[in-house]
Amino acid sequence: MAAQFRYQRRVQFHETDLAGIVHFSWYFKYMEEAEHALWRSVGMSIAPPDPTFGFPRVNATCDFKAPLKFEDEVEVHIAVERLGRRSIKYACTLKRGSDIVATGSMTSACVTRDPNGRVQSIDVPESVRSRLTQDGVLPSRRA
Amino acid sequence: MAAQFRYQRRVQFHETDLAGIVHFSWYFKYMEEAEHALWRSVGMSIAPPDPTFGFPRVNATCDFKAPLKFEDEVEVHIAVERLGRRSIKYACTLKRGSDIVATGSMTSACVTRDPNGRVQSIDVPESVRSRLTQDGVLPSRRA
Amino acid sequence: MAAQFRYQRRVQFHETDLAGIVHFSWYFKYMEEAEHALWRSVGMSIAPPDPTFGFPRVNATCDFKAPLKFEDEVEVHIAVERLGRRSIKYACTLKRGSDIVATGSMTSACVTRDPNGRVQSIDVPESVRSRLTQDGVLPSRRA
Amino acid sequence: MAAQFRYQRRVQFHETDLAGIVHFSWYFKYMEEAEHALWRSVGMSIAPPDPTFGFPRVNATCDFKAPLKFEDEVEVHIAVERLGRRSIKYACTLKRGSDIVATGSMTSACVTRDPNGRVQSIDVPESVRSRLTQDGVLPSRRA
Repeated sequence: MAAQFRYQRRVQFHETDLAGIVHFSWYFKYMEEAEHALWRSVGMSIAPPDPTFGFPRVNATCDFKAPLKFEDEVEVHIAVERLGRRSIKYACTLKRGSDIVATGSMTSACVTRDPNGRVQSIDVPESVRSRLTQDGVLPSRRA
Repeated sequence: MAAQFRYQRRVQFHETDLAGIVHFSWYFKYMEEAEHALWRSVGMSIAPPDPTFGFPRVNATCDFKAPLKFEDEVEVHIAVERLGRRSIKYACTLKRGSDIVATGSMTSACVTRDPNGRVQSIDVPESVRSRLTQDGVLPSRRA
Repeated sequence: MAAQFRYQRRVQFHETDLAGIVHFSWYFKYMEEAEHALWRSVGMSIAPPDPTFGFPRVNATCDFKAPLKFEDEVEVHIAVERLGRRSIKYACTLKRGSDIVATGSMTSACVTRDPNGRVQSIDVPESVRSRLTQDGVLPSRRA
Repeated sequence: MAAQFRYQRRVQFHETDLAGIVHFSWYFKYMEEAEHALWRSVGMSIAPPDPTFGFPRVNATCDFKAPLKFEDEVEVHIAVERLGRRSIKYACTLKRGSDIVATGSMTSACVTRDPNGRVQSIDVPESVRSRLTQDGVLPSRRA
């Protein structure tokens, strides 16, 4: 079974806009913060000191169900939905208490850079694959 | 025919991340900036001084085709793809020169707030509808 | 004695720039997040539901001593340095472990808006003043 | 005489906060965007493809005089106030029409990284110095 994770964080003032609610672009940042917390929870960093590969986004999507306000506590439930040979798709649900405020997904490709700086698609390394498929729901962590 | 627009802007330093490229959340902001420029081009503001309605997002999606770098010139081609009774869907293509760097869409609902602050879906006002459906491709504008 | 507070948070990926370190504008956001956490710690919100006053910035300054990197844990030590009749000045020290990464300050004026929307300087309300001057160092809180 | 420059840009929706005005952290980004436009105007990039040096901030300060609102046109007047041996200080005035909305400054150190990644202060290269001291007020440019 693939890794799952819950990530909590409080809405900050600078994340709101003149409509008085969180700007929609922040929902994508919340999902990414949860992704990186999930990686840390299985002992990895999305940006290791000496990387030979990286994970640029190829797709991101979000359905917005309810607004988030300043000082709300939001919880991102993130799971690896599909672990492809050369890509990872995450499914996310954003909740405030028991209310679902958004659902979304992010897909990243695994790439490397050749000596000329050209990006090339490569297989997700086995070390990453094994950690992202370890069993069980991981405990909730705060920002 | 629905309104179309081209919006140009230069990638700023603070929009990049440690991978050396524009953070994916900025593509959504570029699309939104183009939307608001389109509105200005037909004599409207998405945030008029005394609004009785607003346009929160209900969906946003983006397919990322190529990275953007600091000081790149990006051009957002935006068009009203579907003007529903109570919603507006925009289709966007982000280009650098002749290269397509991303395609995406944003859908917003037309809403009003009742005296208790509750958000209610309403019809897109006729004044907005008529301006967003006027003919022709509008000229390119810079940020 | 004036209120003091420690606020902890982890550096996020989207806060870095192409130089591989946190963009300097984020240091100001970290200080502000600490300010709002300090307010919450004494039972207040900087943005109450029905405000008759607000606290726009009149000055902000920061001396940057060391870079912050992705996934660093930063701790903001914030204290009310001067509680004027119509303004509040905060002094901040940003630390990573025992290293000081920055020192800074923020000064806000207390204002109200008259019916025509004009901003007017007013005295800091007594309810705010009494809470911001209560004794003791408050315990550290996470984001 | 040192380089001067005027940089124009429109306030975007996502730069505002729930107080209905531009978040104060954006004033620092506006100043930085102006700095980089000034560099481009004299034929340089603050982030050249193969840099042997960089310019991290050592100080930034801003006095906020008036709020900026969505769709305002802001103009940043930037000048090299002091070109030290190992640092550059910029002085900025932010204007909306003839109104001054803020004044501020940014100081950057010139540094290099040794093979172990340690940052070391170095002299501002002569190529940079000569371009930043060329005569005359440069014409205004848009974002």
